[in-house]
Amino acid sequence: MDKINAAIKKITALDYKLMALTQERLDNLTKPLGSLGRLEELAKQICGITGKENPVLKNKVIFTLAADHGVTAEGVSAYPKEVTAQMVYNFLAGGAGINVLAKHAGARVVVVDIGVASDLKARPGLVIKKINYGTKNMALGPAMSKEEAIASIETGIEVFEAEYTKGIDIVGTGDMGIGNTTASAAIASVITGKTVEEITGRGTGINDAGLSKKINVIKKAIKTNAPQPKDGLDVLAKVGGFEIGGLVGIILAACARKIPVVIDGFISTAAALIAHSLKPEVKEYIIAAHCSKEKGHRLMLAYLELKPLLDLDMRLGEGTGAALGMSIIEASTKILTEMATFQNAGVSDRMDKENL
Amino acid sequence: MDKINAAIKKITALDYKLMALTQERLDNLTKPLGSLGRLEELAKQICGITGKENPVLKNKVIFTLAADHGVTAEGVSAYPKEVTAQMVYNFLAGGAGINVLAKHAGARVVVVDIGVASDLKARPGLVIKKINYGTKNMALGPAMSKEEAIASIETGIEVFEAEYTKGIDIVGTGDMGIGNTTASAAIASVITGKTVEEITGRGTGINDAGLSKKINVIKKAIKTNAPQPKDGLDVLAKVGGFEIGGLVGIILAACARKIPVVIDGFISTAAALIAHSLKPEVKEYIIAAHCSKEKGHRLMLAYLELKPLLDLDMRLGEGTGAALGMSIIEASTKILTEMATFQNAGVSDRMDKENL
Repeated sequence: MDKINAAIKKITALDYKLMALTQERLDNLTKPLGSLGRLEELAKQICGITGKENPVLKNKVIFTLAADHGVTAEGVSAYPKEVTAQMVYNFLAGGAGINVLAKHAGARVVVVDIGVASDLKARPGLVIKKINYGTKNMALGPAMSKEEAIASIETGIEVFEAEYTKGIDIVGTGDMGIGNTTASAAIASVITGKTVEEITGRGTGINDAGLSKKINVIKKAIKTNAPQPKDGLDVLAKVGGFEIGGLVGIILAACARKIPVVIDGFISTAAALIAHSLKPEVKEYIIAAHCSKEKGHRLMLAYLELKPLLDLDMRLGEGTGAALGMSIIEASTKILTEMATFQNAGVSDRMDKENL
Repeated sequence: MDKINAAIKKITALDYKLMALTQERLDNLTKPLGSLGRLEELAKQICGITGKENPVLKNKVIFTLAADHGVTAEGVSAYPKEVTAQMVYNFLAGGAGINVLAKHAGARVVVVDIGVASDLKARPGLVIKKINYGTKNMALGPAMSKEEAIASIETGIEVFEAEYTKGIDIVGTGDMGIGNTTASAAIASVITGKTVEEITGRGTGINDAGLSKKINVIKKAIKTNAPQPKDGLDVLAKVGGFEIGGLVGIILAACARKIPVVIDGFISTAAALIAHSLKPEVKEYIIAAHCSKEKGHRLMLAYLELKPLLDLDMRLGEGTGAALGMSIIEASTKILTEMATFQNAGVSDRMDKENL
C-alpha cells in the first residue's frame, strides 16, 4: 500500500494561477475571443496540470492492460475468454484497432499482461506483470483478495514509472479483457448509485436475453459481495478486475507526475471512478476522450463531471477513443505556442464601440 | 455557367455496392461488430465517394477563401473590416488558427483572395482571383450581380482544378471575411425556412444590442432583395458573399472529381446549402466536421441531414474545424487498410450461442 499512498500524497490541485495567465495569452491570439471553444479550455487545463507555460505533448503513451474475468463462466460475453490472450498477440503484431489509431495519433502502445488466464509467450513489447490467472467469478464471491487489489494498483504504478523514464508527456488508458464490461458496470453501479439496469450495456454485442442475464449476474455479484461504495479498494477487490486495478495505478502515478490522463471508454472510466474515490483531485487531471456507446458511460462521466471530447458511437475499448482524443488535446497546446498575437501579426483587435 | 453545369453533370450517386462490400470487410476485422461506430460509417462513405477499395487520404487540402462584405457598413461585426486583409497576411505567415490545426492534421492550406476590399500584395502561396472589392451592402440591394455570383462559383471550380493537378485526396472548406456570418445567416434563413432569429448568432462576438441590430439588418436584406429559396444562385447573388460562392465551386468541383468534402462551420455550411440546392447529390460527398457554437449551425446541418463529427464549441472559421475533422476521417480509412482480420490474427470470432 506504500506505493499507492506515496502517489496519492503527491497529487495536488492544478496550477490555477498559470491557467489564468494562459487564458490571457489565449485572448491575445489572432482569433475572436474564446472562438476555439474547448481547445482553449484544454490548453489551459494542460498548463494547469503540467505547470508548464508551453507544454509540448510529444511523448504520447497509451497503456493497454489485459486481464481475464472469472465472471465469464456465467456466459456474459459474446466472445470466448480465449480472445483476451489472442488479442494481446494481435496488439503485439500491430493488427488491432488501438495499433492503427495510436499510430495515427503518434502514440506508442504499452501492452501489459496483468492477469490473463493463460501463460503468454514472452514477446518484444509485452510487459508481463501477472497478478493471477484471471479474477474469480464475482457472482460467487470476491473477484480478488484485498492484497491482489492493492497489487494490481501498485503494478499499474510500477508500469507507469518504468515507462516514465523513457519520456511521457500525456497518457491514455486502454483495456482488453473479455467480461470486463460486466465488472465495470458493477463498479459503476456501486460507486455512482445508479441501478444496474441503468448502467449495464451490451458489451461486445449480446442480445436482449444475454443482457438480461448479464444484469442478473451483476446484481448477484453486488448482493453476494456487498462492496462498500465509499471504499474504492473494496469495490475493486469485490467486483473489479486486474486490468481495472492496473489502470487505477496508471492514473494515480500519472497525476503524481503531473501528466495529463486521457481516459478511454467504459472500462477506463470505471478505473477513474476508483481512482477518484481514492483521491478526488485526480478528476482535474483527467480528460474524457469520448462517450462510449456502452449504455452507462454517460452516467459515469456525469458523476465525475467530465465532458467527453468525442461522441462517435465507439465501444471497442483498448484505448482507441483515447488515441483519437489525444490528438485533439495535442492540437490545443499547439494553438497556444504556434499562433500569432494580434500585435505580432499586425491584425486589428476588436472595436470597442457601443453595440459591439 | 458552363463550368458549373459541367461539374453538376459529373456528380453521381455514391458507389453503394462498394460500400456494402466495405461493410463486410469491416465486419471481419478484429473488433466486436460495429464497435468503431462512426469511424466505420466514415470508412464506408469514403469508399463510396472515391470508388476505391482502399482509399488513402494522404493529400489533404484546405481551401480558405477570403472576401469582404458591404454589409459591414451597417455595423454588424465586432471587428473592423480591415481584419479580412490582415488575416490573409496572417494565413500566409503561418500564424493563424488554421495554419496550426492544418499542420497538425498534415493538410496544406490554399489561401485565396476572391473578393477582399483592398489590393493585396502578391505573396508566395496567395491565389488572387478577385471578383470585386467586396460585395455591396445587401441591406440596400443585391450583394452582387448574377454574373458575379456565377463567376465566384466558377472561380472556386478553377481554384480546385488548379490544385487538383498537385494531388488532392480530401478537401476541407474554410473562410475569412468580416461580416460573413451575416451573409451566411441570411442564406441559411432563406433556404432552410427558419426565422432570422433562430439562425443568427453573435459571429465574432457582438453583444445583445449588436445581435438585435444584426437580426434587423438581415431581415431588411431579405425583404429588400426577396431571394428565391429554391434558387441557390439567386440567394447567393442577393445575400451571399464571394468566398461563399467560391466555396460552392470548391464543393461542386470536388464532388465531380469524387473527392470527399469536409465542411467547416457556419459559413462553409451556408455554401453547402447553396451547392445542395444546385445539386442535391452533393450531400452524400459532404462530411460535417463539427457543430459550431454559432447559433443556427445545428439547424443548417439538420436541414442537410448531416451529423457533425465534433462538438467543441468552436466558432473561428478559416477551416479550423475541418482540419480537426479530416484527421478523424483519415483515421477511419486506416482502420480499413491496417487492421488484421480474425483469421489473419488467429482471434476467435463471436460465439453463436443462445443468449449471446
